[in-house]
Amino acid sequence: MSLDYCAPLRDMRFVIDEWIGAPEWWCGVPGWADLDAATAHQVLEEAARFVMERIAPLNAGGDLAGCRFENGELTLPEGFRASYRDYVEAGWPTLALDAGHGGQGLPYLLDVALQEMLAGANHAWLMSPGLTHGAAACLIAHGSADLRATWLPKIASGEWLTTMCLTEPQAGSDLSLLRARATPDAAHDGYRIDGNKIFITGGDHDLTENIVHLVLARLPDAPAGSKGLSLFIVPKWLEDGAAGRVRNGVHCEGIEKKMGLKASPTCSMRFEQALGWLVGEPHRGLASMFVMMNAARLQVAMQGIGHAHSAWQRAQAYAAQRVQMRAVSAPPDYAGEPGQPAPIAFHPAMRRTLLDLRAVVEGERAIGYWIGHWLDVAARHAQAREREAAARLASLLTPVAKAFFTANGFAAASDALQVFGGYGYIHEYGIEQTVRDSRVAMLYEGTNEIQAIDLLVRKVLADRGETLRALLDHMRTEAQQCGAVALAQPLGARLGALADEVGRVSGGLLRASSQDAELPYRVAGDYLALLGWLLLGFAWARAMRLACGASADDPFYAEKRATAQYFFDYPLAAFDYRLRLIEAGCQAPLPHV
Amino acid sequence: MSLDYCAPLRDMRFVIDEWIGAPEWWCGVPGWADLDAATAHQVLEEAARFVMERIAPLNAGGDLAGCRFENGELTLPEGFRASYRDYVEAGWPTLALDAGHGGQGLPYLLDVALQEMLAGANHAWLMSPGLTHGAAACLIAHGSADLRATWLPKIASGEWLTTMCLTEPQAGSDLSLLRARATPDAAHDGYRIDGNKIFITGGDHDLTENIVHLVLARLPDAPAGSKGLSLFIVPKWLEDGAAGRVRNGVHCEGIEKKMGLKASPTCSMRFEQALGWLVGEPHRGLASMFVMMNAARLQVAMQGIGHAHSAWQRAQAYAAQRVQMRAVSAPPDYAGEPGQPAPIAFHPAMRRTLLDLRAVVEGERAIGYWIGHWLDVAARHAQAREREAAARLASLLTPVAKAFFTANGFAAASDALQVFGGYGYIHEYGIEQTVRDSRVAMLYEGTNEIQAIDLLVRKVLADRGETLRALLDHMRTEAQQCGAVALAQPLGARLGALADEVGRVSGGLLRASSQDAELPYRVAGDYLALLGWLLLGFAWARAMRLACGASADDPFYAEKRATAQYFFDYPLAAFDYRLRLIEAGCQAPLPHV
Repeated sequence: MSLDYCAPLRDMRFVIDEWIGAPEWWCGVPGWADLDAATAHQVLEEAARFVMERIAPLNAGGDLAGCRFENGELTLPEGFRASYRDYVEAGWPTLALDAGHGGQGLPYLLDVALQEMLAGANHAWLMSPGLTHGAAACLIAHGSADLRATWLPKIASGEWLTTMCLTEPQAGSDLSLLRARATPDAAHDGYRIDGNKIFITGGDHDLTENIVHLVLARLPDAPAGSKGLSLFIVPKWLEDGAAGRVRNGVHCEGIEKKMGLKASPTCSMRFEQALGWLVGEPHRGLASMFVMMNAARLQVAMQGIGHAHSAWQRAQAYAAQRVQMRAVSAPPDYAGEPGQPAPIAFHPAMRRTLLDLRAVVEGERAIGYWIGHWLDVAARHAQAREREAAARLASLLTPVAKAFFTANGFAAASDALQVFGGYGYIHEYGIEQTVRDSRVAMLYEGTNEIQAIDLLVRKVLADRGETLRALLDHMRTEAQQCGAVALAQPLGARLGALADEVGRVSGGLLRASSQDAELPYRVAGDYLALLGWLLLGFAWARAMRLACGASADDPFYAEKRATAQYFFDYPLAAFDYRLRLIEAGCQAPLPHV
Repeated sequence: MSLDYCAPLRDMRFVIDEWIGAPEWWCGVPGWADLDAATAHQVLEEAARFVMERIAPLNAGGDLAGCRFENGELTLPEGFRASYRDYVEAGWPTLALDAGHGGQGLPYLLDVALQEMLAGANHAWLMSPGLTHGAAACLIAHGSADLRATWLPKIASGEWLTTMCLTEPQAGSDLSLLRARATPDAAHDGYRIDGNKIFITGGDHDLTENIVHLVLARLPDAPAGSKGLSLFIVPKWLEDGAAGRVRNGVHCEGIEKKMGLKASPTCSMRFEQALGWLVGEPHRGLASMFVMMNAARLQVAMQGIGHAHSAWQRAQAYAAQRVQMRAVSAPPDYAGEPGQPAPIAFHPAMRRTLLDLRAVVEGERAIGYWIGHWLDVAARHAQAREREAAARLASLLTPVAKAFFTANGFAAASDALQVFGGYGYIHEYGIEQTVRDSRVAMLYEGTNEIQAIDLLVRKVLADRGETLRALLDHMRTEAQQCGAVALAQPLGARLGALADEVGRVSGGLLRASSQDAELPYRVAGDYLALLGWLLLGFAWARAMRLACGASADDPFYAEKRATAQYFFDYPLAAFDYRLRLIEAGCQAPLPHV
């Protein structure tokens, strides 16, 4: 039995080539004419090799060793520094960066797949380069030409790592309460930053020669609240022509003892007269920061998939070889003696769990990559209208993916742990680490509760359901296409009915919210989960349709069909459960107790 | 803000005095005529003081320090030894033990409440004395007069701690695969035990002068399978008249690195020519061991309540003082400025979470204590028929409580963690420890999947639903009584309908199982959860009825009424969800993938 991480290359190919049909679209995009499916797969195979050989083996050891913080120096576990350098040298951070900014200019869709692999193999390791993409995007969108020239090459390449300094002890979800201050320093054409920041991932470490912090702080004339925040770029080391490198006033004061991600330092930072430069307009820092946060939110969604996938994979491998109890039923080709103890993978309770996990993982992969694809469309489509529509769709889907996938990632890890019985509770089998590591993704980059409010209040109700209708049209088109394929037809019919149901419920919420301002906040979490189950229904209906077209003998497609049918038979019952809770929210008041 | 453990004495009083009405029953029991509600509360207050002052403060430190295993010596964290000695001296282990065996002879119901407190305050600490009760019960039921005379006083008093040595690497849920051997040793009128056991809680430690292991092993003439297992009592130290104490061949080989319960050693044990004595009949060891396991299962159920309660309590305290974001609605008596950031306890998503937790905790407390009460009835009722009926009811309810409460305990801990936002992920706030500690309860004493099979196959289908019908009659009686109270009437009506639904579904499963042997194994987990939600419905319908009778002004009863209504409005939707999954299991095949 191997419990090592194994990248899901076959399913990635299915999703990219067939489910999304991305290569077909790529060939019409300027610069991507030569990018075919085979090339994309080569890239992913290369990435998978690096992840499996260099990153995955550091996961368990990194968890045990943790980070050391001694005499003000932060050291990451053995192997992290060397593997990170090779990661940068191989050019992985710039995979999807525009060639104009020194990147390889490949589809973001491929980067999304890379994110999934890194998260599944070693979430803590991934935390270090996790903000590179977002920081580069932020500088490209909001940095002056000067700032870009100075910082972008080293940030985008990963040569210098970045942090996002938002949270302060009194200001977590509510950034309007931030207190850090910035005062002009004319001599350096910059600002001096003072304040304390907490929960700063990679606030200090030994991976790169410099660390660049993106810090939210208030200018002297700033209005109160979140509209008075400005964004500054603040390096750990300053270049000083005469003196060489000098330390900036940025200090790591300590690291948190966390439930998981022990190989990723979470720092308390003190900024003391730290020299920095303004990114974007004064008082508009939150808008600049949101560029970073949106990129980060989809990455976090991919972490949910990575965790669920690696948990499922290990549980499946364990269940196939662990022999306990005779089985009440066995696969037709089972050669073992009846009445004798059998692999636990045959036991119905284990099959339910393993199928639940598989249905969630593969369904989410289709949806997660689809969002990545929409971001490519938003960036590269020839027509502005299509670009805008794609951006709106991705922006609607991102909070669903962030919250639904991460909640499922944690639940999947715990369900997979259960397959291991008592062994699941022991560090050696790795699955308890997945439970601990995956839990954070429901909290950071905006708690899942914040995502739900973002979805329902800002993305659905604020545009009166317009973007939602575009999404539902995709479902209805799929439902129609399923009609032509015998096995897919009933799934398509149900998908169409669910889409109608979501449309009806959303219209009802839109109308009722004007009378009952609390309503959307009462049901936002259930509404997000409702959309999540609808999206998985969409994923599996289309998967069923595609798997019927292919050679029926290929076990890959046979398993797709079986899982698609299972998903509609069993787990999709959760859609109705969420619907009931939303109806409850519409009818029953919520007491203050 | 205090995040310290606080025992729920007020609600315990409500459950014991009003919901169960136990004191009324006690006064008719020989030996308990003088035991009134006030005396029982004094006992619980005393217990609560000990738990809050001596046990709870060791929880976080114990988790950080863990157990030390050096040079073959096992040391528990600081404070564990002293507090355990005081616990024994105060007589807490013998609370519910018969006076005839040297105990205090109080109701087991009070012991159940003590178990909840210990688990909520410090689960790892509780692991050490966790088997005392079961080991004593096992010796009383199956030990010879000689064995009882030698071992019972020290075991029952807690002076010597006990272990339960079942699991071997190849034999976890499936005890038929056990290999440990026992060979007669006529010279000592005993047996020599050889074999390896794993996952032995408290296999070694420094709390008591001797440790007594109850070990399953095979005699030379034993048949294969689980009907060839015998139970032996095997001490760490042997009394040898001439030589004084000599070490027996029982060796701790190492301790596991676990997800949680770090202050409780989980040992790998090697038995090498270890001298032991047979408990009960040869080859009937499993029956003797089940006495221990059944007692342990209800205790584990109480751990689920303890975790959920302490998680809810801390989340509530945190939410009341953490100020972030303005509230879309506030309690009528809130004096804060509108438009300004408010306690997060006002935010609808947090209120939903906190109410969900409260509804689960208090509902489970009623049901868990009720089972404890049935065990008292089973032990002390004047009529044999009533004793047997009570024992059957408790035996039906125990697997539901074990699996449903522990799954909810873990889920509650994670939901409570979410209330803390990023702080929840940090050790300092304690809640992440609860998530880690609570997870094991879904695995040990029979995984939750095993409980589900025990419930449906052995407790419901095997007696053709007879015990289940007795349970449903309790619900229907309550439903009827609710009819006389305006606020409780709709809850009672719904409870009656749910009980009918469970009866209908159970009958259907009974009929269909004869044609489809896999069916009960396919749906057992959902069936257990279905019963769990029904029981919570029962708990809250009765709570609503009782809370209407009491003074309407008392905030305790006002909150009970609000929570009861909330439970029926929102979380009870999970009943229908489980029903849907059972129906799916009846209709849809489960593929082997």
